[in-house]
Order: sequence, then structure tokens, then C-alpha cells
Amino acid sequence: MADDKKTIIVFSGDLDRAMAAMIIARGAAAMGNEVTLFFTFWGLNLLRRPEPVKVKKDLLAAMFGWMMPRGAGKVSLSKMHMGGMGTAMMQHVMKTKNVPTLPEMIAEAQEFGVKFIACTMSMDVMGIKEEELIDGVEFGGVAAYLGSADEANVNLFI
Amino acid sequence: MADDKKTIIVFSGDLDRAMAAMIIARGAAAMGNEVTLFFTFWGLNLLRRPEPVKVKKDLLAAMFGWMMPRGAGKVSLSKMHMGGMGTAMMQHVMKTKNVPTLPEMIAEAQEFGVKFIACTMSMDVMGIKEEELIDGVEFGGVAAYLGSADEANVNLFI
Amino acid sequence: MADDKKTIIVFSGDLDRAMAAMIIARGAAAMGNEVTLFFTFWGLNLLRRPEPVKVKKDLLAAMFGWMMPRGAGKVSLSKMHMGGMGTAMMQHVMKTKNVPTLPEMIAEAQEFGVKFIACTMSMDVMGIKEEELIDGVEFGGVAAYLGSADEANVNLFI
Repeated sequence: MADDKKTIIVFSGDLDRAMAAMIIARGAAAMGNEVTLFFTFWGLNLLRRPEPVKVKKDLLAAMFGWMMPRGAGKVSLSKMHMGGMGTAMMQHVMKTKNVPTLPEMIAEAQEFGVKFIACTMSMDVMGIKEEELIDGVEFGGVAAYLGSADEANVNLFI
Repeated sequence: MADDKKTIIVFSGDLDRAMAAMIIARGAAAMGNEVTLFFTFWGLNLLRRPEPVKVKKDLLAAMFGWMMPRGAGKVSLSKMHMGGMGTAMMQHVMKTKNVPTLPEMIAEAQEFGVKFIACTMSMDVMGIKEEELIDGVEFGGVAAYLGSADEANVNLFI
Repeated sequence: MADDKKTIIVFSGDLDRAMAAMIIARGAAAMGNEVTLFFTFWGLNLLRRPEPVKVKKDLLAAMFGWMMPRGAGKVSLSKMHMGGMGTAMMQHVMKTKNVPTLPEMIAEAQEFGVKFIACTMSMDVMGIKEEELIDGVEFGGVAAYLGSADEANVNLFI
């Protein structure tokens, strides 16, 4: 086990929880850690490209795709979303405080070398295809996660 | 600390979070890890027997019992439940993809030797009796959790 | 890494999740661990003083302040809140079972020497000032968290 490895399972696709994950990941990477993020379930939505991607899907997969937010720029607070007003307020405050947006945080994390792994089993169940996700994402399952977690000294589930 | 021990606190009783817990637990056990799951708060509902169990309860405990889902076959998605439609859609997709149901995942985890501990303090507060839970569950408190977590190299809270 | 250090990121401000955090923190401290809690996002509300505190805020910060619960005595269950009835029922049951209230658990954790750190970045975004928080809280950011987590053998995100 190395003191300089961290993993986070990004299960949540909520704006607030995703920001927490990215702030920790970016901070740990900036301090010299090797950070691996595993995106699973709703967390996968954070990795979706904002533009529609032409892929063949069956009806249910297409429905899931329509109902779920397309990318980190579309996600909402887990609390106080209030029909969008709370989320917009929070994003406005973050802007005035010069806090990066969530898509910017994600891009910065990738620039800092944080490794992104999308959970292939969740992708299969939710009907999300590799082409629909942003660049720089690797693909793996629970074995890949456990391999990284075994070597890390901080493992979080967000 | 051993590299082959893992613990998960299963706090959530949501279908999606419980599936994540079970997929990690089952995967880790299959790879030779000693895995301990601590079921607390809403997570206890995952361990309830599906059939009614005759136990003496006061009114409030009985009310909690009626309001909470009876077993892993009754729980809902934390997001997109949509009055049951989203949860049913997800379960349908899982079936077509040959992903086991949550009760099947739980049974498989037990077969793989994953240890299940129900939090006695939560059981007391929520009025859940030992007889109401599925077979193969042990009982313990925060000291039991900490004892296991101290020996594990991956500890998650889900 | 020492076997006797633990950290918890208290992200959630829900009654049930906060209780879980406090029960683990108090238990670990009672067993001789050095426990550090990082309060961030909604978790910060748990540290707010119950009485109004006169501080200068801009309109958005003031609005956030009004909308969010003022202190651990005001927070709700994440599930079955039911317009307050579920939360009141749970608090009633806890009282009859002699389980301490959440504010009591927080005070006890502090007495047991659990270190409380409020996330300065979240405070800035949510417009929460140091004077609004209870006594005995330190202030720090992600670097403070990572410094503690690197030395701990159990790190949870709640």
C-alpha cells in the first residue's frame, strides 16, 4: 500500500456530491497523489458529452438516456434544487467567488492526471455507450476498482 | 492491517446503492477477501424477511415497520423512482441483461462468505426484531464495526 | 499510518446520516482513536448556532442562510421525513430509548476530543461565517483533510 494513492467511487450524479469528489481528487492529485475515480450508476452522467451522440439503442436505453442529465453541466443539487432555482443560485454564487464550474473541475482533474474509469456494468444496464462519454475515460469493472483500492490509503464512496 | 479485508457500512436502503454495495462485496469476496457488511438505518430494510413475522411491537415500532420496505425485493431507486416506473424499468433492464436481482445478489454474497452484521442500536430505534431478519445475520454495534474496519484496507460507507 | 486515527467527511446535513457519523466518531474516540470530522456542504448546517448571529451578508448568502437548517436541532431525516412527522416520530422513539439527540451527540463527540474542521471553501460558497458556528470548530480546506486522511486507517464519506 502506498501513501500516495487515492480512489473515489463516484456513484452520485448530484452537482454537490460531484463537486466534493472533484475537489478532493484535484487536491490530492495536486499534492502528488495518484488518484483514480470510478464512475458508476448516476455518476456516469457526469461523463456524458453535452451534445447528442448518434448511437444505436433499444427503446429502454434511449428512454434512460433522455431522462438522465447529459453531462456535468446539466446536473442538479441533491438538496434545495427547488425546480432549478437553488441550483442556479449555487452556480451563480460559485461564479462570483471564482469557484470553477463542475465541467471545469472535471477538465482540471483530468489535466492533473486523475484517472477516470467508467463502470462497464453500469454502462450496460443504463444503456450508455463508450462514444457518449467524454475523452480520456477508461473502462473497467469491480476487479479494476478493487485492484486500485487495494493499493490506496484513502478510498471513498461518494 | 491485512490487504484482504474489506468493510462496507450499508446505511442506505435504496436499490441502486444497495446494488453497488453488493457488487463490491461479492466481487471482493470472489477475489479472496474477507468482507464484512454492517447494515444500519435504512440498510436494515434490505435484511427484512419478505413475509410478515409475528413479533410483539409497540405502536410506533409497528408503524415504522409498515412504512418501511420489507426486504430487498421491495426497495426503490434513490433517483428516477417515478412512482415505481423508473425502478420497474431498471429491474426489467437488469433482467434482460442477466444481472441478478438485489435479493439474488444478497444471497450470492452470503454464499461467497460475506459476513452480514445488523446494527443493534438501529434495530432498537427502528423497532426491528432479530426474527424479522433473514438467516445468517449476526448482530453488533459500533465496536464490532471498528474492530473489523481497523483490520481492513478498504472501508466504505454507502 | 497509525491504526488509531479515523476521519469522516460529514457532507450530509441529514439527521440520520449525521447520527451515523456521530455514533462512529464518538465510538472510535471512546476506544482511543484520534478522530477528525470534516464538515462540508450541507454538513456545515450541523455546526450552525441555533440562535441568529448578526453578521454582514450579501442577499444570496442571507437567502441560503434562511433556507438551510440552523443547527443540528433543526435537521430532518433523508427518508420518511413526511412533512416533519417521520422525523418527529424518530426523535420521539430515540428519546424513549434514551438515545441522545443529535445536538447531544455532537457535544459528546467534542467532549471525547473529536476534532471538528469546517470546510472554508464551502463556508465561502454558502456564505456561512465563523461566528455562526458553534465553539470548538477549526477551519481548513482539502489539504487539511488529506493530511489527516493520509495518517488514518479508516476514512469515510457520509
